[in-house]
Amino acid sequence: MTTIGVFDSGFGGLTVLRALLPLIPDARYIYLGDTARLPYGSKSHDTIARYAVSSAKFLAAQGADLLVIACNTASALALDDIRSAVTIPVVGVIQPGAEAALNTSQGLPPAAQSQQHVLVLATSATTQSGAYTRALNTLGLRATEKACPLLVPLVEEGWLDEPSQTSVTLEVLHIYLLEALAQAPDASILLLGCTHYPLLKEMIETTLRNIHHPMRIIDSAEATAGAVAALLQTSATSTPGNPECHFYATDSIEKFQRLGSAFLGQPLPTVQLIDLGG
Amino acid sequence: MTTIGVFDSGFGGLTVLRALLPLIPDARYIYLGDTARLPYGSKSHDTIARYAVSSAKFLAAQGADLLVIACNTASALALDDIRSAVTIPVVGVIQPGAEAALNTSQGLPPAAQSQQHVLVLATSATTQSGAYTRALNTLGLRATEKACPLLVPLVEEGWLDEPSQTSVTLEVLHIYLLEALAQAPDASILLLGCTHYPLLKEMIETTLRNIHHPMRIIDSAEATAGAVAALLQTSATSTPGNPECHFYATDSIEKFQRLGSAFLGQPLPTVQLIDLGG
Repeated sequence: MTTIGVFDSGFGGLTVLRALLPLIPDARYIYLGDTARLPYGSKSHDTIARYAVSSAKFLAAQGADLLVIACNTASALALDDIRSAVTIPVVGVIQPGAEAALNTSQGLPPAAQSQQHVLVLATSATTQSGAYTRALNTLGLRATEKACPLLVPLVEEGWLDEPSQTSVTLEVLHIYLLEALAQAPDASILLLGCTHYPLLKEMIETTLRNIHHPMRIIDSAEATAGAVAALLQTSATSTPGNPECHFYATDSIEKFQRLGSAFLGQPLPTVQLIDLGG
Repeated sequence: MTTIGVFDSGFGGLTVLRALLPLIPDARYIYLGDTARLPYGSKSHDTIARYAVSSAKFLAAQGADLLVIACNTASALALDDIRSAVTIPVVGVIQPGAEAALNTSQGLPPAAQSQQHVLVLATSATTQSGAYTRALNTLGLRATEKACPLLVPLVEEGWLDEPSQTSVTLEVLHIYLLEALAQAPDASILLLGCTHYPLLKEMIETTLRNIHHPMRIIDSAEATAGAVAALLQTSATSTPGNPECHFYATDSIEKFQRLGSAFLGQPLPTVQLIDLGG
Protein backbone atom coordinates (compact mmCIF):
# COMPACT_ATOMS: atom_id res chain seq x y z
CA MET A 1 0.00 0.00 0.00
CA THR A 2 1.33 3.43 -0.98
CA THR A 3 2.03 5.88 1.84
CA ILE A 4 1.32 9.47 0.85
CA GLY A 5 2.89 12.20 2.97
CA VAL A 6 0.98 15.48 2.94
CA PHE A 7 2.63 18.60 4.31
CA ASP A 8 1.39 22.10 5.09
CA SER A 9 2.41 24.89 7.44
CA GLY A 10 -0.91 24.39 9.21
CA PHE A 11 -4.48 23.38 8.50
CA GLY A 12 -4.97 24.51 4.89
CA GLY A 13 -3.37 21.40 3.41
CA LEU A 14 -6.24 19.40 4.87
CA THR A 15 -8.31 20.70 1.91
CA VAL A 16 -5.85 18.83 -0.35
CA LEU A 17 -6.09 15.70 1.80
CA ARG A 18 -9.89 16.02 1.65
CA ALA A 19 -9.68 15.95 -2.17
CA LEU A 20 -7.20 13.03 -2.12
CA LEU A 21 -9.23 10.67 0.10
CA PRO A 22 -12.08 9.87 -2.35
CA LEU A 23 -9.70 9.91 -5.33
CA ILE A 24 -7.07 7.55 -3.88
CA PRO A 25 -8.90 5.64 -1.15
CA ASP A 26 -6.50 2.65 -1.16
CA ALA A 27 -3.55 4.54 0.35
CA ARG A 28 -2.13 5.26 3.78
CA TYR A 29 -1.84 9.00 4.57
CA ILE A 30 0.47 10.84 6.95
CA TYR A 31 -0.23 14.54 7.36
CA LEU A 32 2.08 17.08 9.01
CA GLY A 33 0.95 20.58 9.97
CA ASP A 34 3.92 22.71 11.08
CA THR A 35 1.67 24.75 13.36
CA ALA A 36 4.42 25.90 15.75
CA ARG A 37 6.06 27.87 12.94
CA LEU A 38 3.03 28.99 10.88
CA PRO A 39 2.26 31.13 9.02
CA TYR A 40 4.80 30.72 6.23
CA GLY A 41 3.07 33.21 3.91
CA SER A 42 4.50 36.33 5.53
CA LYS A 43 8.09 35.04 5.93
CA SER A 44 11.27 35.03 3.82
CA HIS A 45 12.55 32.40 1.36
CA ASP A 46 15.39 31.21 3.63
CA THR A 47 13.14 30.73 6.64
CA ILE A 48 10.39 29.01 4.61
CA ALA A 49 12.91 26.68 2.94
CA ARG A 50 14.47 25.70 6.30
CA TYR A 51 11.06 24.92 7.81
CA ALA A 52 9.75 23.08 4.74
CA VAL A 53 12.86 20.91 4.36
CA SER A 54 12.80 19.78 8.00
CA SER A 55 9.10 18.97 7.65
CA ALA A 56 9.62 17.03 4.40
CA LYS A 57 12.48 15.03 5.93
CA PHE A 58 10.22 14.12 8.86
CA LEU A 59 7.53 12.71 6.55
CA ALA A 60 10.12 10.81 4.47
CA ALA A 61 11.50 9.31 7.69
CA GLN A 62 7.97 8.17 8.61
CA GLY A 63 7.89 6.03 5.46
CA ALA A 64 6.21 8.27 2.87
CA ASP A 65 6.58 6.94 -0.70
CA LEU A 66 5.42 10.23 -2.19
CA LEU A 67 5.28 13.74 -0.81
CA VAL A 68 2.51 16.25 -1.51
CA ILE A 69 3.50 19.82 -0.61
CA ALA A 70 -0.06 20.95 0.13
CA CYS A 71 1.05 24.50 0.88
CA ASN A 72 1.24 27.10 -1.85
CA THR A 73 3.92 29.14 -0.07
CA ALA A 74 6.24 26.14 0.43
CA SER A 75 5.54 24.94 -3.13
CA ALA A 76 6.28 28.38 -4.56
CA LEU A 77 9.47 29.04 -2.60
CA ALA A 78 10.96 25.73 -1.52
CA LEU A 79 10.04 22.96 -3.98
CA ASP A 80 13.60 22.69 -5.31
CA ASP A 81 15.04 22.74 -1.78
CA ILE A 82 12.65 19.94 -0.76
CA ARG A 83 13.42 17.86 -3.90
CA SER A 84 17.14 18.15 -3.12
CA ALA A 85 16.57 17.05 0.47
CA VAL A 86 14.54 13.84 -0.04
CA THR A 87 14.76 10.93 -2.50
CA ILE A 88 11.01 10.30 -2.99
CA PRO A 89 8.82 12.02 -5.63
CA VAL A 90 7.52 15.44 -4.57
CA VAL A 91 4.31 17.03 -5.92
CA GLY A 92 3.60 20.70 -5.28
CA VAL A 93 0.38 22.64 -5.81
CA ILE A 94 1.60 25.31 -8.26
CA GLN A 95 2.00 23.22 -11.45
CA PRO A 96 -1.33 21.31 -11.05
CA GLY A 97 -3.13 24.61 -10.36
CA ALA A 98 -1.64 26.21 -13.47
CA GLU A 99 -2.55 23.16 -15.60
CA ALA A 100 -6.12 23.23 -14.29
CA ALA A 101 -6.34 26.87 -15.40
CA LEU A 102 -5.19 25.84 -18.88
CA ASN A 103 -7.74 23.00 -18.98
CA THR A 104 -10.68 25.34 -18.29
CA SER A 105 -9.76 27.33 -21.38
CA GLN A 106 -9.34 24.28 -23.61
CA GLY A 107 -12.74 24.41 -25.28
CA LEU A 108 -11.78 27.80 -26.69
CA PRO A 109 -10.09 28.46 -30.06
CA PRO A 110 -6.25 28.60 -29.70
CA ALA A 111 -6.08 32.38 -30.12
CA ALA A 112 -8.69 33.01 -27.39
CA GLN A 113 -7.00 30.38 -25.23
CA SER A 114 -3.62 32.07 -25.27
CA GLN A 115 -5.26 35.39 -24.41
CA GLN A 116 -6.78 33.99 -21.22
CA HIS A 117 -5.77 36.06 -18.24
CA VAL A 118 -5.57 34.25 -14.89
CA LEU A 119 -5.90 36.14 -11.62
CA VAL A 120 -4.11 34.33 -8.77
CA LEU A 121 -5.02 35.11 -5.16
CA ALA A 122 -2.31 34.02 -2.71
CA THR A 123 -0.16 34.93 0.32
CA SER A 124 2.48 37.67 0.17
CA ALA A 125 5.37 35.19 -0.01
CA THR A 126 3.72 33.20 -2.84
CA THR A 127 3.00 36.28 -4.96
CA GLN A 128 6.49 37.70 -4.34
CA SER A 129 8.04 34.47 -5.60
CA GLY A 130 6.30 34.84 -8.99
CA ALA A 131 6.02 31.02 -9.20
CA TYR A 132 2.42 31.02 -10.47
CA THR A 133 3.21 33.65 -13.11
CA ARG A 134 6.14 31.57 -14.40
CA ALA A 135 4.06 28.35 -14.46
CA LEU A 136 1.07 30.03 -16.19
CA ASN A 137 3.22 31.91 -18.72
CA THR A 138 5.01 28.68 -19.64
CA LEU A 139 1.58 27.20 -20.47
CA GLY A 140 0.79 30.23 -22.65
CA LEU A 141 -1.55 31.97 -20.21
CA ARG A 142 -1.26 35.51 -18.93
CA ALA A 143 -1.17 35.96 -15.14
CA THR A 144 -1.63 38.58 -12.44
CA GLU A 145 -0.95 37.70 -8.81
CA LYS A 146 -2.62 39.46 -5.88
CA ALA A 147 -1.47 39.12 -2.26
CA CYS A 148 -4.42 38.76 0.15
CA PRO A 149 -2.74 38.52 3.57
CA LEU A 150 -5.90 39.00 5.66
CA LEU A 151 -7.76 36.02 4.20
CA VAL A 152 -5.84 33.35 6.15
CA PRO A 153 -6.52 35.01 9.55
CA LEU A 154 -10.22 35.46 8.64
CA VAL A 155 -10.54 31.78 7.70
CA GLU A 156 -8.59 30.62 10.77
CA GLU A 157 -10.89 32.74 12.98
CA GLY A 158 -13.90 31.17 11.24
CA TRP A 159 -15.47 34.49 10.16
CA LEU A 160 -17.50 32.60 7.56
CA ASP A 161 -21.01 32.13 8.97
CA GLU A 162 -22.19 34.66 11.53
CA PRO A 163 -23.74 37.64 9.61
CA SER A 164 -21.72 40.54 11.12
CA GLN A 165 -18.47 38.57 10.74
CA THR A 166 -19.37 37.47 7.20
CA SER A 167 -19.95 41.10 6.27
CA VAL A 168 -16.34 41.89 7.29
CA THR A 169 -14.98 38.96 5.27
CA LEU A 170 -17.04 40.04 2.23
CA GLU A 171 -15.79 43.63 2.59
CA VAL A 172 -12.17 42.42 2.68
CA LEU A 173 -12.76 40.24 -0.42
CA HIS A 174 -14.42 43.21 -2.14
CA ILE A 175 -11.34 45.40 -1.47
CA TYR A 176 -8.88 42.74 -2.64
CA LEU A 177 -10.84 41.80 -5.79
CA LEU A 178 -11.39 45.42 -6.84
CA GLU A 179 -7.67 46.13 -6.39
CA ALA A 180 -6.75 42.98 -8.34
CA LEU A 181 -9.19 43.65 -11.20
CA ALA A 182 -7.93 47.22 -11.54
CA GLN A 183 -4.60 45.62 -12.50
CA ALA A 184 -6.15 42.80 -14.55
CA PRO A 185 -9.50 44.07 -15.93
CA ASP A 186 -9.77 41.27 -18.53
CA ALA A 187 -9.09 38.37 -16.14
CA SER A 188 -11.51 35.50 -16.76
CA ILE A 189 -10.09 32.74 -14.54
CA LEU A 190 -9.56 33.05 -10.80
CA LEU A 191 -7.02 30.66 -9.26
CA LEU A 192 -7.18 30.09 -5.49
CA GLY A 193 -3.46 30.03 -4.73
CA CYS A 194 -3.69 29.22 -1.02
CA THR A 195 -5.14 26.10 0.56
CA HIS A 196 -7.18 28.20 3.00
CA TYR A 197 -9.15 29.87 0.21
CA PRO A 198 -11.45 26.98 -0.83
CA LEU A 199 -13.35 27.71 2.42
CA LEU A 200 -14.08 31.20 0.97
CA LYS A 201 -15.20 29.95 -2.46
CA GLU A 202 -18.90 30.80 -2.06
CA MET A 203 -18.13 34.25 -0.66
CA ILE A 204 -15.73 34.92 -3.54
CA GLU A 205 -18.49 33.94 -6.00
CA THR A 206 -20.91 36.31 -4.21
CA THR A 207 -18.37 39.15 -4.37
CA LEU A 208 -17.67 38.56 -8.06
CA ARG A 209 -21.44 38.70 -8.79
CA ASN A 210 -21.74 41.93 -6.78
CA ILE A 211 -18.98 43.60 -8.79
CA HIS A 212 -20.37 42.18 -12.08
CA HIS A 213 -17.19 40.31 -12.94
CA PRO A 214 -17.98 36.57 -13.07
CA MET A 215 -14.95 34.28 -13.36
CA ARG A 216 -14.24 30.57 -13.41
CA ILE A 217 -12.73 29.60 -10.06
CA ILE A 218 -9.91 27.04 -9.95
CA ASP A 219 -9.15 25.33 -6.67
CA SER A 220 -5.54 24.10 -6.68
CA ALA A 221 -6.37 21.59 -3.90
CA GLU A 222 -8.63 19.64 -6.30
CA ALA A 223 -6.14 20.00 -9.15
CA THR A 224 -3.28 18.70 -6.99
CA ALA A 225 -5.25 15.64 -5.89
CA GLY A 226 -5.87 14.88 -9.57
CA ALA A 227 -2.16 15.20 -10.35
CA VAL A 228 -1.25 12.80 -7.54
CA ALA A 229 -3.83 10.27 -8.76
CA ALA A 230 -2.43 10.54 -12.29
CA LEU A 231 1.11 10.00 -10.99
CA LEU A 232 0.01 6.88 -9.11
CA GLN A 233 -2.18 5.85 -12.09
CA THR A 234 -5.07 5.20 -9.78
CA SER A 235 -8.70 6.25 -9.82
CA ALA A 236 -11.57 6.32 -7.35
CA THR A 237 -13.05 3.18 -8.90
CA SER A 238 -9.95 1.06 -8.18
CA THR A 239 -10.69 -0.09 -4.62
CA PRO A 240 -13.42 0.96 -2.22
CA GLY A 241 -10.85 1.16 0.62
CA ASN A 242 -10.94 2.89 3.95
CA PRO A 243 -7.99 5.27 3.95
CA GLU A 244 -5.79 5.18 7.03
CA CYS A 245 -4.75 8.68 8.19
CA HIS A 246 -2.11 9.70 10.74
CA PHE A 247 -1.86 13.34 11.77
CA TYR A 248 1.14 15.15 13.21
CA ALA A 249 1.36 18.77 14.38
CA THR A 250 4.20 20.82 15.88
CA ASP A 251 1.92 22.87 18.19
CA SER A 252 -1.28 22.39 20.22
CA ILE A 253 -3.06 19.16 19.31
CA GLU A 254 -6.38 20.35 20.71
CA LYS A 255 -6.41 23.39 18.41
CA PHE A 256 -5.37 21.25 15.45
CA GLN A 257 -8.31 18.91 16.00
CA ARG A 258 -10.75 21.78 16.55
CA LEU A 259 -9.77 23.91 13.53
CA GLY A 260 -8.74 21.05 11.28
CA SER A 261 -12.17 19.45 11.03
CA ALA A 262 -13.54 22.47 9.09
CA PHE A 263 -10.79 22.02 6.50
CA LEU A 264 -10.98 18.22 6.31
CA GLY A 265 -14.79 18.20 6.34
CA GLN A 266 -14.84 15.49 9.00
CA PRO A 267 -13.56 15.04 12.56
CA LEU A 268 -9.85 14.36 12.94
CA PRO A 269 -8.86 11.23 14.82
CA THR A 270 -5.77 11.24 17.04
CA VAL A 271 -3.17 13.95 16.35
CA GLN A 272 0.40 13.43 17.55
CA LEU A 273 2.59 16.31 18.76
CA ILE A 274 6.13 16.38 17.37
CA ASP A 275 9.07 18.73 17.89
CA LEU A 276 11.00 19.80 14.79
CA GLY A 277 13.11 22.21 16.83
CA GLY A 278 12.76 25.95 16.83
CA MET B 1 25.93 52.56 30.88
CA THR B 2 23.01 50.19 31.39
CA THR B 3 22.16 47.85 28.52
CA ILE B 4 18.43 47.18 28.27
CA GLY B 5 17.35 44.14 26.26
CA VAL B 6 13.88 44.42 24.77
CA PHE B 7 12.21 41.32 23.38
CA ASP B 8 9.04 40.71 21.35
CA SER B 9 7.82 38.06 18.94
CA GLY B 10 7.88 40.73 16.24
CA PHE B 11 7.34 44.44 15.79
CA GLY B 12 4.84 45.27 18.56
CA GLY B 13 7.51 45.56 21.26
CA LEU B 14 8.89 48.56 19.38
CA THR B 15 5.98 50.53 20.93
CA VAL B 16 7.54 49.74 24.33
CA LEU B 17 11.00 50.75 23.09
CA ARG B 18 9.45 53.96 21.74
CA ALA B 19 8.15 54.74 25.24
CA LEU B 20 11.50 53.80 26.85
CA LEU B 21 13.73 56.04 24.69
CA PRO B 22 12.60 59.46 26.02
CA LEU B 23 12.20 58.09 29.56
CA ILE B 24 15.65 56.45 29.82
CA PRO B 25 17.77 58.21 27.19
CA ASP B 26 21.10 57.38 28.83
CA ALA B 27 20.98 53.64 28.12
CA ARG B 28 22.08 51.27 25.39
CA TYR B 29 19.23 49.22 23.86
CA ILE B 30 19.25 45.84 22.13
CA TYR B 31 15.96 44.78 20.60
CA LEU B 32 15.11 41.30 19.35
CA GLY B 33 12.05 40.54 17.19
CA ASP B 34 11.57 36.76 16.79
CA THR B 35 9.93 37.31 13.40
CA ALA B 36 10.72 33.85 12.00
CA ARG B 37 8.46 32.27 14.63
CA LEU B 38 5.75 34.92 15.08
CA PRO B 39 2.93 35.16 15.92
CA TYR B 40 3.08 33.79 19.47
CA GLY B 41 -0.52 34.82 20.27
CA SER B 42 -2.16 31.83 18.59
CA LYS B 43 0.26 29.19 19.91
CA SER B 44 0.50 26.94 22.98
CA HIS B 45 2.26 27.53 26.30
CA ASP B 46 5.06 25.01 25.63
CA THR B 47 5.89 26.44 22.21
CA ILE B 48 5.74 30.06 23.43
CA ALA B 49 7.96 29.26 26.45
CA ARG B 50 10.56 27.50 24.26
CA TYR B 51 10.71 30.41 21.82
CA ALA B 52 10.75 33.10 24.54
CA VAL B 53 13.50 31.40 26.58
CA SER B 54 15.82 31.05 23.58
CA SER B 55 15.21 34.71 22.71
CA ALA B 56 15.85 35.87 26.29
CA LYS B 57 19.08 33.86 26.48
CA PHE B 58 20.25 35.50 23.26
CA LEU B 59 19.74 39.01 24.67
CA ALA B 60 21.44 38.08 27.96
CA ALA B 61 24.40 36.73 25.98
CA GLN B 62 24.60 40.06 24.12
CA GLY B 63 25.25 41.79 27.43
CA ALA B 64 21.80 42.96 28.57
CA ASP B 65 21.74 44.06 32.23
CA LEU B 66 17.96 44.05 32.32
CA LEU B 67 15.37 42.34 30.14
CA VAL B 68 12.04 43.84 29.12
CA ILE B 69 9.58 41.25 27.79
CA ALA B 70 7.74 43.69 25.54
CA CYS B 71 5.28 41.03 24.39
CA ASN B 72 2.07 40.42 26.26
CA THR B 73 1.80 36.79 25.16
CA ALA B 74 5.34 35.91 26.32
CA SER B 75 4.83 37.91 29.55
CA ALA B 76 1.53 36.15 30.24
CA LEU B 77 2.71 32.62 29.52
CA ALA B 78 6.47 32.45 29.93
CA LEU B 79 7.67 35.05 32.46
CA ASP B 80 8.55 32.38 35.05
CA ASP B 81 10.29 30.25 32.41
CA ILE B 82 12.35 33.26 31.32
CA ARG B 83 13.24 34.25 34.92
CA SER B 84 14.48 30.69 35.56
CA ALA B 85 16.60 30.76 32.39
CA VAL B 86 18.52 34.02 32.89
CA THR B 87 20.20 35.67 35.89
CA ILE B 88 19.37 39.34 35.07
CA PRO B 89 16.19 41.15 36.20
CA VAL B 90 13.19 40.57 33.92
CA VAL B 91 10.27 43.01 33.56
CA GLY B 92 7.09 41.91 31.80
CA VAL B 93 4.18 44.05 30.59
CA ILE B 94 1.32 42.46 32.58
CA GLN B 95 2.07 43.78 36.08
CA PRO B 96 2.82 47.38 34.96
CA GLY B 97 -0.37 47.37 32.86
CA ALA B 98 -2.46 46.16 35.80
CA GLU B 99 -0.88 48.77 38.12
CA ALA B 100 -1.59 51.54 35.60
CA ALA B 101 -5.25 50.46 35.59
CA LEU B 102 -5.28 50.74 39.39
CA ASN B 103 -3.67 54.20 39.24
CA THR B 104 -6.39 55.58 36.94
CA SER B 105 -9.02 54.71 39.56
CA GLN B 106 -7.06 56.19 42.46
CA GLY B 107 -8.92 59.50 42.67
CA LEU B 108 -12.10 57.55 43.43
CA PRO B 109 -13.42 56.65 46.91
CA PRO B 110 -12.19 53.16 48.03
CA ALA B 111 -15.59 51.51 47.48
CA ALA B 112 -15.91 52.83 43.91
CA GLN B 113 -12.26 51.96 43.28
CA SER B 114 -12.67 48.29 44.16
CA GLN B 115 -15.71 48.09 41.93
CA GLN B 116 -13.79 49.25 38.86
CA HIS B 117 -14.13 46.76 36.04
CA VAL B 118 -11.23 46.53 33.59
CA LEU B 119 -11.75 45.21 30.07
CA VAL B 120 -8.54 43.72 28.65
CA LEU B 121 -8.14 43.30 24.88
CA ALA B 122 -5.42 40.78 23.97
CA THR B 123 -4.38 37.79 21.84
CA SER B 124 -6.00 34.36 22.29
CA ALA B 125 -2.99 32.93 24.15
CA THR B 126 -2.84 35.91 26.55
CA THR B 127 -6.55 35.76 27.42
CA GLN B 128 -6.44 31.97 27.81
CA SER B 129 -3.61 32.29 30.31
CA GLY B 130 -5.75 34.48 32.61
CA ALA B 131 -2.59 36.40 33.62
CA TYR B 132 -4.22 39.85 33.42
CA THR B 133 -7.24 38.70 35.43
CA ARG B 134 -4.98 37.36 38.19
CA ALA B 135 -2.87 40.54 38.27
CA LEU B 136 -5.92 42.86 38.28
CA ASN B 137 -7.84 40.81 40.88
CA THR B 138 -4.79 40.85 43.18
CA LEU B 139 -4.92 44.66 43.01
CA GLY B 140 -8.63 44.60 43.91
CA LEU B 141 -9.96 45.30 40.42
CA ARG B 142 -12.48 43.22 38.47
CA ALA B 143 -11.42 42.02 35.03
CA THR B 144 -12.84 40.66 31.77
CA GLU B 145 -10.48 39.55 29.00
CA LYS B 146 -11.45 39.54 25.32
CA ALA B 147 -9.42 37.80 22.61
CA CYS B 148 -9.14 39.93 19.45
CA PRO B 149 -7.11 37.73 17.08
CA LEU B 150 -7.75 39.76 13.91
CA LEU B 151 -6.29 43.01 15.27
CA VAL B 152 -2.63 41.98 14.92
CA PRO B 153 -3.01 41.04 11.21
CA LEU B 154 -4.93 44.29 10.53
CA VAL B 155 -2.16 46.36 12.16
CA GLU B 156 0.60 44.38 10.43
CA GLU B 157 -1.13 44.95 7.08
CA GLY B 158 -1.37 48.65 7.89
CA TRP B 159 -5.17 48.89 7.43
CA LEU B 160 -5.14 52.11 9.47
CA ASP B 161 -5.30 55.01 7.00
CA GLU B 162 -6.93 54.33 3.63
CA PRO B 163 -10.74 54.90 4.03
CA SER B 164 -12.06 51.53 2.72
CA GLN B 165 -9.45 49.64 4.78
CA THR B 166 -10.11 51.76 7.86
CA SER B 167 -13.81 50.95 7.57
CA VAL B 168 -12.96 47.22 7.82
CA THR B 169 -10.75 47.79 10.87
CA LEU B 170 -13.47 49.87 12.54
CA GLU B 171 -16.07 47.18 11.80
CA VAL B 172 -13.84 44.51 13.37
CA LEU B 173 -13.29 46.71 16.45
CA HIS B 174 -17.05 47.32 16.65
CA ILE B 175 -17.73 43.55 16.66
CA TYR B 176 -15.07 42.81 19.29
CA LEU B 177 -16.05 45.70 21.58
CA LEU B 178 -19.79 44.90 21.43
CA GLU B 179 -19.06 41.25 22.24
CA ALA B 180 -16.76 42.27 25.11
CA LEU B 181 -19.18 44.82 26.59
CA ALA B 182 -22.02 42.29 26.46
CA GLN B 183 -19.94 40.30 28.97
CA ALA B 184 -18.73 43.35 30.93
CA PRO B 185 -21.43 46.07 30.59
CA ASP B 186 -20.05 48.11 33.51
CA ALA B 187 -16.40 48.17 32.36
CA SER B 188 -14.91 51.65 32.72
CA ILE B 189 -11.22 51.03 31.97
CA LEU B 190 -9.91 49.51 28.75
CA LEU B 191 -6.45 47.94 28.92
CA LEU B 192 -4.58 47.39 25.63
CA GLY B 193 -3.06 43.97 26.37
CA CYS B 194 -1.05 43.62 23.15
CA THR B 195 1.81 45.81 21.98
CA HIS B 196 0.24 46.12 18.51
CA TYR B 197 -2.89 47.79 19.85
CA PRO B 198 -1.49 51.29 20.65
CA LEU B 199 -1.51 51.82 16.86
CA LEU B 200 -5.31 51.35 17.01
CA LYS B 201 -5.88 53.69 19.97
CA GLU B 202 -7.64 56.45 18.00
CA MET B 203 -9.86 53.99 16.17
CA ILE B 204 -10.77 52.32 19.48
CA GLU B 205 -11.72 55.74 20.89
CA THR B 206 -13.87 56.41 17.78
CA THR B 207 -15.60 53.03 18.17
CA LEU B 208 -16.26 53.59 21.89
CA ARG B 209 -17.83 56.99 21.08
CA ASN B 210 -19.99 55.39 18.37
CA ILE B 211 -21.35 52.78 20.78
CA HIS B 212 -21.77 55.40 23.56
CA HIS B 213 -19.46 53.63 25.99
CA PRO B 214 -16.51 55.92 26.76
CA MET B 215 -13.65 54.31 28.71
CA ARG B 216 -10.22 55.30 29.93
CA ILE B 217 -7.64 53.57 27.77
CA ILE B 218 -4.48 52.17 29.36
CA ASP B 219 -1.51 51.41 27.15
CA SER B 220 0.71 48.81 28.80
CA ALA B 221 3.66 49.89 26.64
CA GLU B 222 3.72 53.29 28.40
CA ALA B 223 3.14 51.67 31.79
CA THR B 224 5.99 49.19 31.26
CA ALA B 225 8.45 51.92 30.29
CA GLY B 226 7.51 53.69 33.53
CA ALA B 227 8.14 50.52 35.54
CA VAL B 228 11.57 50.06 33.98
CA ALA B 229 12.50 53.69 34.72
CA ALA B 230 11.38 53.21 38.34
CA LEU B 231 13.46 50.04 38.62
CA LEU B 232 16.52 51.86 37.31
CA GLN B 233 15.60 54.95 39.41
CA THR B 234 16.10 57.17 36.42
CA SER B 235 14.00 59.88 34.83
CA ALA B 236 13.94 61.76 31.53
CA THR B 237 15.57 64.77 33.17
CA SER B 238 18.70 62.82 34.22
CA THR B 239 20.79 63.07 31.05
CA PRO B 240 19.94 64.40 27.61
CA GLY B 241 21.66 61.41 25.97
CA ASN B 242 21.36 59.91 22.54
CA PRO B 243 20.25 56.31 23.05
CA GLU B 244 22.19 53.69 21.12
CA CYS B 245 19.91 51.01 19.62
CA HIS B 246 20.82 47.66 18.08
CA PHE B 247 18.13 45.65 16.34
CA TYR B 248 18.06 41.90 15.71
CA ALA B 249 15.42 39.88 13.85
CA THR B 250 15.12 36.16 13.07
CA ASP B 251 13.46 36.71 9.65
CA SER B 252 13.61 39.20 6.75
CA ILE B 253 15.52 42.34 7.72
CA GLU B 254 13.94 44.38 4.93
CA LYS B 255 10.40 43.67 6.22
CA PHE B 256 11.50 44.41 9.79
CA GLN B 257 12.80 47.82 8.78
CA ARG B 258 9.75 48.60 6.65
CA LEU B 259 7.06 47.59 9.21
CA GLY B 260 9.06 48.46 12.31
CA SER B 261 9.25 52.18 11.65
CA ALA B 262 5.46 52.57 12.12
CA PHE B 263 5.77 50.99 15.58
CA LEU B 264 8.93 52.84 16.62
CA GLY B 265 7.74 56.16 15.19
CA GLN B 266 11.08 56.72 13.44
CA PRO B 267 13.20 54.92 10.85
CA LEU B 268 15.12 51.86 12.06
CA PRO B 269 18.86 51.88 11.52
CA THR B 270 20.67 48.64 10.68
CA VAL B 271 18.91 45.40 11.60
CA GLN B 272 20.95 42.22 11.99
CA LEU B 273 19.60 38.78 11.02
CA ILE B 274 20.15 36.02 13.57
CA ASP B 275 19.25 32.33 13.62
CA LEU B 276 17.77 30.97 16.86
CA GLY B 277 17.14 27.58 15.21
CA GLY B 278 13.77 26.25 14.12
